[in-house]
Amino acid sequence: MNASDFSDRAQAAQTRVEELQDTICRALEAMDGGSFVEDRWSRGGGGGGKTRILEGGHVLEKAGVNTSAVFGEVPEAVRAQMPGDGERFFATGVSLVLHPRNPHAPTTHANFRYIERGSTGWFGGGADLTPYVLYDEDAAHFHEQLAGPCDAYDVEFYPRFKAWCDRYFYLPHRGEARGVGGLFFDHVMVDEAADEAELVSWWSALGESFLPAYLPILERRRDQPFDDDLRQWQLMRRGRYVEFNLLHDRGTKFGLQTNGRIESIFMSLPPLVRWDYNVEPAPGSPGARLLDVLKTPREWLERRTG
Amino acid sequence: MNASDFSDRAQAAQTRVEELQDTICRALEAMDGGSFVEDRWSRGGGGGGKTRILEGGHVLEKAGVNTSAVFGEVPEAVRAQMPGDGERFFATGVSLVLHPRNPHAPTTHANFRYIERGSTGWFGGGADLTPYVLYDEDAAHFHEQLAGPCDAYDVEFYPRFKAWCDRYFYLPHRGEARGVGGLFFDHVMVDEAADEAELVSWWSALGESFLPAYLPILERRRDQPFDDDLRQWQLMRRGRYVEFNLLHDRGTKFGLQTNGRIESIFMSLPPLVRWDYNVEPAPGSPGARLLDVLKTPREWLERRTG
Repeated sequence: MNASDFSDRAQAAQTRVEELQDTICRALEAMDGGSFVEDRWSRGGGGGGKTRILEGGHVLEKAGVNTSAVFGEVPEAVRAQMPGDGERFFATGVSLVLHPRNPHAPTTHANFRYIERGSTGWFGGGADLTPYVLYDEDAAHFHEQLAGPCDAYDVEFYPRFKAWCDRYFYLPHRGEARGVGGLFFDHVMVDEAADEAELVSWWSALGESFLPAYLPILERRRDQPFDDDLRQWQLMRRGRYVEFNLLHDRGTKFGLQTNGRIESIFMSLPPLVRWDYNVEPAPGSPGARLLDVLKTPREWLERRTG
Repeated sequence: MNASDFSDRAQAAQTRVEELQDTICRALEAMDGGSFVEDRWSRGGGGGGKTRILEGGHVLEKAGVNTSAVFGEVPEAVRAQMPGDGERFFATGVSLVLHPRNPHAPTTHANFRYIERGSTGWFGGGADLTPYVLYDEDAAHFHEQLAGPCDAYDVEFYPRFKAWCDRYFYLPHRGEARGVGGLFFDHVMVDEAADEAELVSWWSALGESFLPAYLPILERRRDQPFDDDLRQWQLMRRGRYVEFNLLHDRGTKFGLQTNGRIESIFMSLPPLVRWDYNVEPAPGSPGARLLDVLKTPREWLERRTG
């Protein structure tokens, strides 16, 4: 069995994912001045990936932009959760997590993937923002850029996937969202689309919207002055990121259940993190303002209704 | 329902656990010069606890020594895993995690607990050591002190619980033990003991053995010189501690499933932690020597056999 045993759509998705990795890495290198290091790995059962990491950059303290295209027998551990039937699957995607140095700049995560099993194929992914200091205009800009390609395809997509993101990136033991959200979607089935080519274009355009959604925010926050108190707050909030990724993240669970490459899975973990006992930001402080929004997710876009 | 609805053994165990907390905190404060801060909390369903935290000490970067005594209806989430029958349970224990500043000094964790459900009661707990630099004599001393009370009661206990510790504190995704082990035991049933009073004495003596097992090691390593490379190695290895506690630790899972007090559960997480991509210690380095032992757990005591 090899990748060419799967649909033309699968091969086109892999090409798209790898183009996106190249485009995003080039833009981040140009902005940061640092360079990604690439590790290629292959999977025993079929396929492999390209893990690209930039550590200790000028702007990015740690960044991972990974792609993979794996195929083979459906792993036993995930058989029941996976749509479609048949014993063979193909999955390709790009997955990135960016941890900037400056606490005024938010951490971001994005993932764009295509999976098929037997004759059934679907898209999944999303992008979300985790600020340490709340800037309403940054959150609104990020959501607006992601909403654009969604609205062009189906006006129901943005509100559905925005709400899904708020539900998914949630730490029940803290009663907090991980950040100010964005989009999260899964099982967007190709055979349910009115027009398959338009659905593929939506997914492709959404991937392209990541850079214009995030880069302008990073550009405007990268050199903003900050003191050590804010740095320590950032390190403590990064602890929540670790809690989410190890306790709840489905991608991490899937990776561990299917014996994925551990260093590629854990590239999402922040470079430096604190856990202090029972930290509560002072009432009215910027930290308290952030927590209010994490406890009660907000609508960031004014939407025409009805 | 209140604590006095349970057996005399339950009330004696709670007293023992709280005495142990006092003794350990006093000894650590005397050694460190810093002070524990106490938070008392109560549990909706019945009982409560005393969380004691020392942060930013001279020797201890972060230390938590907690007790709790909780009772009530058996929580649905843990009903099937719990021995005994009946709908009411009582659980008391002391649980501690100490993260020293100096990377030559190991992190340690210990837990001594008594639980009963209906007419069935059992002991659980253990103590284990997580070094950043391997000192054979420290590991051997720690094991020897814990083996003492075990051998006095039943010579099968130390080897059984030492092996259980190696199996339990294991990160499958890293192929590494969390540290150089110690003891881990659960469901040591009171009604299976030849002599109940002797079993209770064993558990009590084991709790008392913690300070002589750990303090001499901390005393001899606390002021040992170290460079920044070793500090960074310590922070990176602390990442493994977080991975174990969030991905595998049963105590953490139990706490989250039963809506335990989150800041008391997460006191175990280290104060400052790094995740770097794909760190491999140089062959022959102290880090490589530590990893060898973590990958293949060692017998630390020469035991008479047969």
